[in-house]
Amino acid sequence: MGRIASLIVALVVLTGQQPVGSQSMGGAKGFDLVDNTGNIRKPADFRDLYQALGVYTPVDFNNNTEMHYTYASPGTVEYYRKTGKFADGTVLVKEVMATDHAQLTTGDAHWATNTKVWFVMIKDDKNRYPNNPLWGDGWGWALFKADAPDKQVATNYKKDCLGCHVPAKSTDWIYVQGYPVLKSK
Amino acid sequence: MGRIASLIVALVVLTGQQPVGSQSMGGAKGFDLVDNTGNIRKPADFRDLYQALGVYTPVDFNNNTEMHYTYASPGTVEYYRKTGKFADGTVLVKEVMATDHAQLTTGDAHWATNTKVWFVMIKDDKNRYPNNPLWGDGWGWALFKADAPDKQVATNYKKDCLGCHVPAKSTDWIYVQGYPVLKSK
Repeated sequence: MGRIASLIVALVVLTGQQPVGSQSMGGAKGFDLVDNTGNIRKPADFRDLYQALGVYTPVDFNNNTEMHYTYASPGTVEYYRKTGKFADGTVLVKEVMATDHAQLTTGDAHWATNTKVWFVMIKDDKNRYPNNPLWGDGWGWALFKADAPDKQVATNYKKDCLGCHVPAKSTDWIYVQGYPVLKSK
Repeated sequence: MGRIASLIVALVVLTGQQPVGSQSMGGAKGFDLVDNTGNIRKPADFRDLYQALGVYTPVDFNNNTEMHYTYASPGTVEYYRKTGKFADGTVLVKEVMATDHAQLTTGDAHWATNTKVWFVMIKDDKNRYPNNPLWGDGWGWALFKADAPDKQVATNYKKDCLGCHVPAKSTDWIYVQGYPVLKSK
């Protein structure tokens, strides 16, 4: 009995603490990344620990191409498929990448090279930081640049972040149409 | 002591058996997808269970844009970072997606919509199926189309697959330059 009890304890402990990949954790871990006043840290190792939602390839008005890779904290996709929403605490990281391109066998192929900036969003259903200008419209918003990757540099989400998200307002500010994984496995 | 021993046993059991995402499993499970004669199945739920390596956005000579999403079986990235190679049994899935695009806030943004075809490759260091025309040059090769997603339709990898990979011959036929995650977290 002692051994069985220990095994059960071990199972509970491991299930709760182990970083078990995309399917297994709830989405409420994002606030681990936030201090008491609402300052947001960028999650470590998100390329490995988060699930990629998808990629946008925008070509700007000077014909420069970027690729925007978006990653979501574990559990995000499963919850979204069930509810059509992002769970409170969901963390999204958008990695804005420079690109290279070449005439390869299927055409002029573009691919990502180096990171330029990271945008981080944390879903907040409870208006937790009403006096912090980086929180509002249901999210916390943050920006990190490649020359100082751990330094959050946005000062006001309405000025630094929201403008680019206006076309996605009806889908909680997220460009969900480019993330097929939200609809199906 | 009994409890500690049980805990250790539980840890070993869990570490070995639990599907713990991208970092924890070895790369030798790919042959679960292959029958005795070398027929290859497409892995289920790879969008959830595999790790996204990256995306290419090729624009063909008629100005049609596709996006090619590549996913790798758990453990692939960790092994590659250490060794510069794909482990025997590594499974790669390239999902070729149709795209849509629109003038959004950062330019003419392209995103993936529906799947057109899937290519599957399984790393084979041991020339396991020398008489099967879908195996050779260190890999098994397979093709599945959206109208019959579980039906493998390639007949000869040299004819159906290899041509498009020639520019990547020096990197074991894989376009690794577009997968920054292989270099770093």
